[in-house]
Amino acid sequence: MKKSIGAKALVMPTPVFVIGSYGDDGTPNIMTAAWGGICASEPPAIAVSIRPGRCTHENIVASKAFTVNIPSVSLLKQADFAGMFSGYDTDKFVETGLTAESSTLVHAPLVVEFPLILECTLIHTIELGTHTQFIGQILDVKADESIMNDLGGLDTAKLAPLAFSPLDGGYYALGEYVGKAFSVGKPA
Amino acid sequence: MKKSIGAKALVMPTPVFVIGSYGDDGTPNIMTAAWGGICASEPPAIAVSIRPGRCTHENIVASKAFTVNIPSVSLLKQADFAGMFSGYDTDKFVETGLTAESSTLVHAPLVVEFPLILECTLIHTIELGTHTQFIGQILDVKADESIMNDLGGLDTAKLAPLAFSPLDGGYYALGEYVGKAFSVGKPA
Repeated sequence: MKKSIGAKALVMPTPVFVIGSYGDDGTPNIMTAAWGGICASEPPAIAVSIRPGRCTHENIVASKAFTVNIPSVSLLKQADFAGMFSGYDTDKFVETGLTAESSTLVHAPLVVEFPLILECTLIHTIELGTHTQFIGQILDVKADESIMNDLGGLDTAKLAPLAFSPLDGGYYALGEYVGKAFSVGKPA
Repeated sequence: MKKSIGAKALVMPTPVFVIGSYGDDGTPNIMTAAWGGICASEPPAIAVSIRPGRCTHENIVASKAFTVNIPSVSLLKQADFAGMFSGYDTDKFVETGLTAESSTLVHAPLVVEFPLILECTLIHTIELGTHTQFIGQILDVKADESIMNDLGGLDTAKLAPLAFSPLDGGYYALGEYVGKAFSVGKPA
């Protein structure tokens, strides 16, 4: 039996994207966003929605670039901090102890401690009520050796990513591997 | 030490959205998509990217509506099946044994067995290389009583959602609760 919950932004999982951007004066900033996801395979592109008025919003509009830094569970506190305070009055790199490094591809900072980072150039901007959807073309992905397997591939379990649940406002770790896509559902 | 992986659509987590739509003749169809996510809070909106040529793509362009059905781990095989075969030559409701029910709000089918369903009306269509991004305004969320707690709220653990990992092409269950958003990262 189903109940109507109303018009709400409720799905699972939503990601924990830590968005890196530079201010006009070159100050690096980070902000955590759960509204977003991959939106095309080729050219690879990712969408991130941010409210007008945020420092990151102003930065992306001006610089036309951003990074998407994926935290491991071990970076939970830093990721949550970056979602609570504004870059307008807080230097979030100083406060979290995280390290900013310039991308060589786009005008945006990488967060060195994060194991998986996407470097993006802005290709579309779509106004959607409370949020602006920024679509970035992914120019490169940087992965830490600590999340690679012996064959040089990326290891999901080693990445140990977080998910955010809009259902209860909680963060969750990733659970067990349950099957291979385009395979587990094949008719017997 | 980080390595360059190239321009690829690699993040975690990505969702397992089972998209419901009607064909011209009223045939219900489902298709599984991992490229998407919430894109605005008010009005609540969700983005789903689908390749031109898919039956679901044609259906959404014509009907201007879709549902997003969130599977529990117990629906893994059906969700994967819906991503492997085309609605042009397969009746995926018949083959999976799932049940289609008409939404009363939009011209799209709900998948009765799925515990969490969003009913969406198309508000934006953005062409992005390989994929078309469909943005739907969420008109209502239907939740099964089985995923509710005693207070009528939604229980993330009871939902038991799936995540897809583009890193290894695997499906993953959700893991343990690790902290409250806008709280766990507060300075001591």
